[in-house]
Amino acid sequence: MVKKLLCLFFAVGFVLAQSTVGFAEEASVAAQAMFTVNNTWMLVATFLVFIMHLGFATLEAGLTQAKNTVNILFKNTSIIAIGLLTYAICGFNLMYPGDFSIGQFFGFSGFGIASPEGAAGLIEYADGNYTYWTDFLFQAMFAATAATIVSGAVAERIKLSSFLIFTTIYVGLVYPIVGSWKWGGGWLDQMGFYDFAGSTLVHSVGGWAALVGVILLGPRLGKYFKGGIRPILGHNLPLVTIGVFLLWLGWFGFNGGSVLSADPGLVSLVFVTTSLAAAAGIIGAMITSWIAQKKPDLTMILNGCLAGLVGITAGADTVTVCSAAIIGGIAGVIVVFSVIFFDRIKIDDPVGAISVHLVCGIWGTLAVGIFSTNPDHSFMTQLIGVAAYGAFCLASAFAIFGGLKAVMGIRVTEIEERQGLDISEHGMEAYGGFQIFTTQ
Amino acid sequence: MVKKLLCLFFAVGFVLAQSTVGFAEEASVAAQAMFTVNNTWMLVATFLVFIMHLGFATLEAGLTQAKNTVNILFKNTSIIAIGLLTYAICGFNLMYPGDFSIGQFFGFSGFGIASPEGAAGLIEYADGNYTYWTDFLFQAMFAATAATIVSGAVAERIKLSSFLIFTTIYVGLVYPIVGSWKWGGGWLDQMGFYDFAGSTLVHSVGGWAALVGVILLGPRLGKYFKGGIRPILGHNLPLVTIGVFLLWLGWFGFNGGSVLSADPGLVSLVFVTTSLAAAAGIIGAMITSWIAQKKPDLTMILNGCLAGLVGITAGADTVTVCSAAIIGGIAGVIVVFSVIFFDRIKIDDPVGAISVHLVCGIWGTLAVGIFSTNPDHSFMTQLIGVAAYGAFCLASAFAIFGGLKAVMGIRVTEIEERQGLDISEHGMEAYGGFQIFTTQ
Amino acid sequence: MVKKLLCLFFAVGFVLAQSTVGFAEEASVAAQAMFTVNNTWMLVATFLVFIMHLGFATLEAGLTQAKNTVNILFKNTSIIAIGLLTYAICGFNLMYPGDFSIGQFFGFSGFGIASPEGAAGLIEYADGNYTYWTDFLFQAMFAATAATIVSGAVAERIKLSSFLIFTTIYVGLVYPIVGSWKWGGGWLDQMGFYDFAGSTLVHSVGGWAALVGVILLGPRLGKYFKGGIRPILGHNLPLVTIGVFLLWLGWFGFNGGSVLSADPGLVSLVFVTTSLAAAAGIIGAMITSWIAQKKPDLTMILNGCLAGLVGITAGADTVTVCSAAIIGGIAGVIVVFSVIFFDRIKIDDPVGAISVHLVCGIWGTLAVGIFSTNPDHSFMTQLIGVAAYGAFCLASAFAIFGGLKAVMGIRVTEIEERQGLDISEHGMEAYGGFQIFTTQ
Repeated sequence: MVKKLLCLFFAVGFVLAQSTVGFAEEASVAAQAMFTVNNTWMLVATFLVFIMHLGFATLEAGLTQAKNTVNILFKNTSIIAIGLLTYAICGFNLMYPGDFSIGQFFGFSGFGIASPEGAAGLIEYADGNYTYWTDFLFQAMFAATAATIVSGAVAERIKLSSFLIFTTIYVGLVYPIVGSWKWGGGWLDQMGFYDFAGSTLVHSVGGWAALVGVILLGPRLGKYFKGGIRPILGHNLPLVTIGVFLLWLGWFGFNGGSVLSADPGLVSLVFVTTSLAAAAGIIGAMITSWIAQKKPDLTMILNGCLAGLVGITAGADTVTVCSAAIIGGIAGVIVVFSVIFFDRIKIDDPVGAISVHLVCGIWGTLAVGIFSTNPDHSFMTQLIGVAAYGAFCLASAFAIFGGLKAVMGIRVTEIEERQGLDISEHGMEAYGGFQIFTTQ
Repeated sequence: MVKKLLCLFFAVGFVLAQSTVGFAEEASVAAQAMFTVNNTWMLVATFLVFIMHLGFATLEAGLTQAKNTVNILFKNTSIIAIGLLTYAICGFNLMYPGDFSIGQFFGFSGFGIASPEGAAGLIEYADGNYTYWTDFLFQAMFAATAATIVSGAVAERIKLSSFLIFTTIYVGLVYPIVGSWKWGGGWLDQMGFYDFAGSTLVHSVGGWAALVGVILLGPRLGKYFKGGIRPILGHNLPLVTIGVFLLWLGWFGFNGGSVLSADPGLVSLVFVTTSLAAAAGIIGAMITSWIAQKKPDLTMILNGCLAGLVGITAGADTVTVCSAAIIGGIAGVIVVFSVIFFDRIKIDDPVGAISVHLVCGIWGTLAVGIFSTNPDHSFMTQLIGVAAYGAFCLASAFAIFGGLKAVMGIRVTEIEERQGLDISEHGMEAYGGFQIFTTQ
Repeated sequence: MVKKLLCLFFAVGFVLAQSTVGFAEEASVAAQAMFTVNNTWMLVATFLVFIMHLGFATLEAGLTQAKNTVNILFKNTSIIAIGLLTYAICGFNLMYPGDFSIGQFFGFSGFGIASPEGAAGLIEYADGNYTYWTDFLFQAMFAATAATIVSGAVAERIKLSSFLIFTTIYVGLVYPIVGSWKWGGGWLDQMGFYDFAGSTLVHSVGGWAALVGVILLGPRLGKYFKGGIRPILGHNLPLVTIGVFLLWLGWFGFNGGSVLSADPGLVSLVFVTTSLAAAAGIIGAMITSWIAQKKPDLTMILNGCLAGLVGITAGADTVTVCSAAIIGGIAGVIVVFSVIFFDRIKIDDPVGAISVHLVCGIWGTLAVGIFSTNPDHSFMTQLIGVAAYGAFCLASAFAIFGGLKAVMGIRVTEIEERQGLDISEHGMEAYGGFQIFTTQ
């Protein structure tokens, strides 16, 4: 332990203070403490983002039918594994290439992850706020969320193998490449586009692919018929609620960690804007659904909560707390109409992922152009960013899903779908011993 | 202090001192690090208290019938939203008014929240331990818990709209006004009343309203009949267990954050007293229920855990670890007899909220007068505090619930109750596709 | 607050910096900040390890039959209570005796816990990294996990009272005594045996007892019949998934906290090795199960995740991130074959605890001898450690379980087992109102 610390601090010319400290050593203790608290906060943020993956898993499982539960849990467990490993293999170095090799659009600094040489590299990294390893893992936890968003939208009929291949490519290549445009210092960053924690870079990136997936797959069997829509009920709303609360919890790390230090003023402001936006999203969706649907709908207020969170993500550090509540409240209204709208046009998204992550991701990004306290942020630049991400992600997702569809198919057979993916794909049931009505 | 301010805020782009630091800068780095770690701990405590709301949601949902699950999840999701927004609008400034305008009983420093002018205000706030925003959000998370306690007790028969109005008034006005008496520096604080983290200020405030609500509503249909009590089974005990563990987890922030800094000695002591009280509460309830009920009852040991946690909350920082275990163990015994007692006198509390939060809240507050290591704490003063909160909360809750009962009714119709609130109030089921026996 | 801090730091000769700070005072603030951040991280790690107990509870409940759910939840809630209290009474002082009284095998520094005299003792403890109370609680949270591992393996047929007595003895005496051999500075520590966070000290200690328990109990009724194995389905795979994700979350504290400070380089490295091992465990088990069982099995990838986590635990701070992925991936392969193997030889372990915790605990411990970057670590020493723990734990568990079997029996009657332990032991059901098929 002592040896390790010595090694760590000696390299930057510091000697760890022991019993009688001189001035220089004391200086090092103060700097070391600052560095340690920043890094510790980033690690806390990392495990908070991690737990969002459980939130997505229970949210999606609860909003779909019991016969497809194992499949959803399998997908969400796989996604975090695939996400972390591909990010270690190539994603991290695609997203933060250092130098770009094709304009400001694409760069790659090599396969694998390795801390910069010696202790100095470890510490001096990131303006002394956190280590190389912290940076990698925090960003890796983000990466996997993009694929998770897709998972919910394509649930109950996508072929497992095709989905896993899609995830590997989308998280390993597409997400980091478009991510580099802004967070890696690429062309959109240089243009002044702003996306604090990823309304566009994470949520819309997932949302665009979800849209493509849903369109290429088509709706679930029996969902739409001549002249009507048959609702397919979620089988477990406590799981959905657990998911939404865990996602909100994780968002404290998603947004709070995006400050990239433990800066007290900024992190606490972000906690407040994030929470008020979520709260306002709930109330916005509650009022809207109570009026529009006559009954107060639980799944709508839960989606309203997520909508508020997605909406505030782009500008959580740059709007007032009052603006945050407005942004969240509007997101809560939007999501209700959006869910109804997509159902009308027969875009079958079982969990409302497109409405929450894509539509509200766009809203949040544009809201920066409206509400930001920073005069450098402009609505037009935000719009350009949204459009650029949309174009690239639509094209990429179409290429991958389309390719898979042509080569190996992306949808299970009708028999498998009726039987449920749990039995057909996995040969097991989620609730052994319980009687479940098969709704088809 | 001045240096600290200058340093932190002139420097959003502040570069951490590296090799050749001057004395003045170094001083500021040390103070800044101290401030940052304190604030970071308070933010961690904040998200821990947040997750208690999920704990309450799953606890209450699990202890009631499947046909009322959506309703409970809806209420608990709404409460956190209402709690945060009302606390931002008026609660925070009612609870911490600065100056009181009516004796030491009532004060209000205006609508809305806004950080004190400039960076200096942000930092100098709270003895340099955390920012204005951190303070607001930590306290706001507390506020909503009071209403959540009521939610469980009145479950399965309260009218949704009436409950939401009650919550808004109780959390937005009653909780902060009585809170100001102690934590806002009011008359009970000046009298020497002690309540570290809220056995009385939070738990009994919720508990008194729960008692009023249950009395005004009456028992659930079929619960009591001539000569007997018909148990109405909770539909999902894994959800209950998840709830209790999440509540314990959250209590590390509830009590640990009430130190109001990351003070190593105090926070770690509070972690230990809190945990040993919870553990002893489990064992106390286990032995009591095994003897009194012949069989070891899972819901009793879970309530025993919560009883221990509520019991230690008033004195977690001012009793020895041994006293903490005794306080928790006694709370575990009390809760079993209390649950049985309220059932005997036909006070129908589906989740045992009155026993856990009110009875053990009182016990915990009085226990400070018995076990505190601080000679300034007196049993009589604690008793006065308990009585004062009881009187005001009973009167307030009676006024609000009574008024709502007169104006719009507080109970659903008999048909709606038999059908379940999920269908009658929300038009949806919690477990679509599963066969559920309706127990009435 | 200021008074408190003064009191705390004055005792070690520090004066809290006020407005115009001199050199000496500033020094104290820097040291205080360093101490506070280290202690705060250890407290965060403590609550993360705490939440693992919820993870175990839901994992075990989900993998077994609905009729035994209350029993499992009861056991897991009891274990944390028993674990914390016995550790306070004697465990902590058995595990860290200071001086050994029988060779380097056994020592005991007295009953009960008490912080060293005064503030100096509190602070100077543990090289100034955390307080006495933090140390106690972090270690106490570990202690209970050993018994939890047993709980899953013996589920669905063990007698509650016997299990609780076993737990009390095993956690209160056996775990801390063998723990002292390494972490208490005993003979294996002096020999150079390495176990960073407990692949052997925690996981195999639980695993050996699980093996003994399963052998002495025999398989569940109807599990094995002439010429075949009848799978007994887990009743709730969402609960299992929740459990695994919560365990992974907790592992950030289990491994990350085992650094015993907030050291940025080491803690962040441990986060990365832990996560990549878990991810690789998922992928390893996925490929293995897809090939060996034809279908991709959800419970196998979830066990693969845990296998990777257990596997990396012994060497998380001393292997490269690439080695971590290899260790985890191999653990994921091992666990699939191990589960199949134990089923073949009629060792009926309903949750796969022996495969995950014992087999992969051994693998992880030996892997330190293969992959460690520290040349002092040797495969042979690791093997000696594994064998020593195995011998002592097998003997102890056999003595306790065997004694209980002789005196009061350890297995419920056949009628009770068929009826389910929820009704027979607790007189209640986990899912009141749902129709459950009894699978026997």
